[in-house]
Amino acid sequence: MEKGDELGRVTLADIAREAEVSVSTVSKVLNGRTDVAAATRVRVEQVLSDHDYQRATRGGGEAPLVEIVFHELDSLWAMELLRGVEAVANEHGAAVVVSHSGSRHAPGPEWIEAVLRRRPLGVVLVFSSLPPEFKAQLRARSIPFVIVDPAGNPDPDVPSVGSANWAGGLAATRHLIELGHRRIAIVTGPEDTLCSLARLDGYRSAMTMAGLAVDPTLTAFGDFHAEGGFAQAGRLLELPDRPTAIFAGSDLQALGVMEAARVRGLRVPEDLSVVGYDDLDIAQWTSPALTTVRQPLRAMAEQATRLILALRNGEAPEAPTRLELSTTLVVRSSAVAPGRP
Amino acid sequence: MEKGDELGRVTLADIAREAEVSVSTVSKVLNGRTDVAAATRVRVEQVLSDHDYQRATRGGGEAPLVEIVFHELDSLWAMELLRGVEAVANEHGAAVVVSHSGSRHAPGPEWIEAVLRRRPLGVVLVFSSLPPEFKAQLRARSIPFVIVDPAGNPDPDVPSVGSANWAGGLAATRHLIELGHRRIAIVTGPEDTLCSLARLDGYRSAMTMAGLAVDPTLTAFGDFHAEGGFAQAGRLLELPDRPTAIFAGSDLQALGVMEAARVRGLRVPEDLSVVGYDDLDIAQWTSPALTTVRQPLRAMAEQATRLILALRNGEAPEAPTRLELSTTLVVRSSAVAPGRP
Repeated sequence: MEKGDELGRVTLADIAREAEVSVSTVSKVLNGRTDVAAATRVRVEQVLSDHDYQRATRGGGEAPLVEIVFHELDSLWAMELLRGVEAVANEHGAAVVVSHSGSRHAPGPEWIEAVLRRRPLGVVLVFSSLPPEFKAQLRARSIPFVIVDPAGNPDPDVPSVGSANWAGGLAATRHLIELGHRRIAIVTGPEDTLCSLARLDGYRSAMTMAGLAVDPTLTAFGDFHAEGGFAQAGRLLELPDRPTAIFAGSDLQALGVMEAARVRGLRVPEDLSVVGYDDLDIAQWTSPALTTVRQPLRAMAEQATRLILALRNGEAPEAPTRLELSTTLVVRSSAVAPGRP
Repeated sequence: MEKGDELGRVTLADIAREAEVSVSTVSKVLNGRTDVAAATRVRVEQVLSDHDYQRATRGGGEAPLVEIVFHELDSLWAMELLRGVEAVANEHGAAVVVSHSGSRHAPGPEWIEAVLRRRPLGVVLVFSSLPPEFKAQLRARSIPFVIVDPAGNPDPDVPSVGSANWAGGLAATRHLIELGHRRIAIVTGPEDTLCSLARLDGYRSAMTMAGLAVDPTLTAFGDFHAEGGFAQAGRLLELPDRPTAIFAGSDLQALGVMEAARVRGLRVPEDLSVVGYDDLDIAQWTSPALTTVRQPLRAMAEQATRLILALRNGEAPEAPTRLELSTTLVVRSSAVAPGRP
């Protein structure tokens, strides 16, 4: 392509010529319009990608937007992530658009069309996978996207920010072992989620390193919600040789575990020690205050947003990056030395 | 003004002529630019208001936005409100922009400038007051705004959506009286917030109607956070003749009250009954599950958003409206009949 504008930048006309379409078609593709044949759209996107076409942001950058997309808005940690994105966007004079993909784990076609029309500086995705055609559409328009991935199933093709789940599981379990517990159960998250498995592996490693057997009857899979913690702890606490401590896998599950203990007349921490995972705001105000593993959700969202802004400014990392922030044990009152049986 | 376009609508040129400024100045004012003298800006806004100037939304309505502004993003009910706005905006193909005013209870000048540049369909404000100049700026551009006002201090000049705080306080206290409690304390919210006072008055009326004295030592003012509930309940539970029940004024305060009881070796509900207010998601998973007054936060936000969209379409209510949604008692496990002293 030899043309370009006076600064040597590729113009819409250049793109149109190479893609063998009209300028108006290129413009339609850029704006996410649906009245373009799929094959044409793909061809135009390919040419845009090839030339790393940089389009001006809407309104000459006067009202810049950063998008955050959740698959659900109902968990407490969604708010933590939103606060992180908002803080960094705000520093850069950008507003935050919030959307969610509903019950799906990836957003639908109406979502990508709306994003393309809004022309954001970039998109923070709080789920693990984005359909390949959406990636192509965002890339063709030079809209960077980063995955904040508490679930730990990163798409290798996309920069992502997560946290150290294995180390967190290890720290939680070691803490219980150091307090003197031997029968320690775990209610981790869903069986098909990598972060669940990483926390479980951290638990197993801590047990094994301490010379303790890993009793399979003391491993349970929850749903990361209080309901799952309640149901699984119910089963564990009905065992003839019940555990003296439960690593609850998430703070919400810890709430369910504490309630499962209470309804059976067991006191936390005297009769059952509980350790959570996340350190949501609420963890300070469970009764007793929850010992938990702090996952820096806000910092993760901040990092993801900074990465987007860097990508936007052409400061791309050398390869798709996986950034893992560290987790730390926060000791409060829900775990103590085991009582006499 | 006799001119107008072919449809008889007022044009920018008409506004400019009447305000005795250039078209470019009118355009600057509409776009929230700061390089316009204040007096000029006010004059142009007045003319825009007089003529109920309807400007096209950005991009011909292709990427419509609804704004929600919090004064803080850290409370659990911010998420409830966001979900309500998001649901209705989504129905109408609009995205939601989230911002917050930080420690101030009203947003600053940089906020209004950014909103004007984004040209949203409308703005949902989650605080009680908006500086008069901001109101003028929004009105001049026909950007409707509605206050969702959990605090109950509505600006009489602006449509607002709230809930029935007095009735909620009454219902919570009656429930405790019906269970057999006589020494019932209240930790309401801050003393300068109308919803706090309304809940307190509901408590007093319930006591008086039941022939019970209102003991001033049993009235406390918190901060609507767990910290305030913990501190105030601490004082109440140290009284020589401590209450057998506390109406906690908010669910977060209820968490603090429950912890204040626990650290004193008092069991909830056996030794102390607790009733919250809000019915956040978390209320199901306090231990024991919280009896509380449900404030329909999500429905309030949905109503506010619908009102904005109606105003946007010219379906204005006859006068600035105050819509109060009802509150309902949700009975769970944290309040029971008082034990023997």
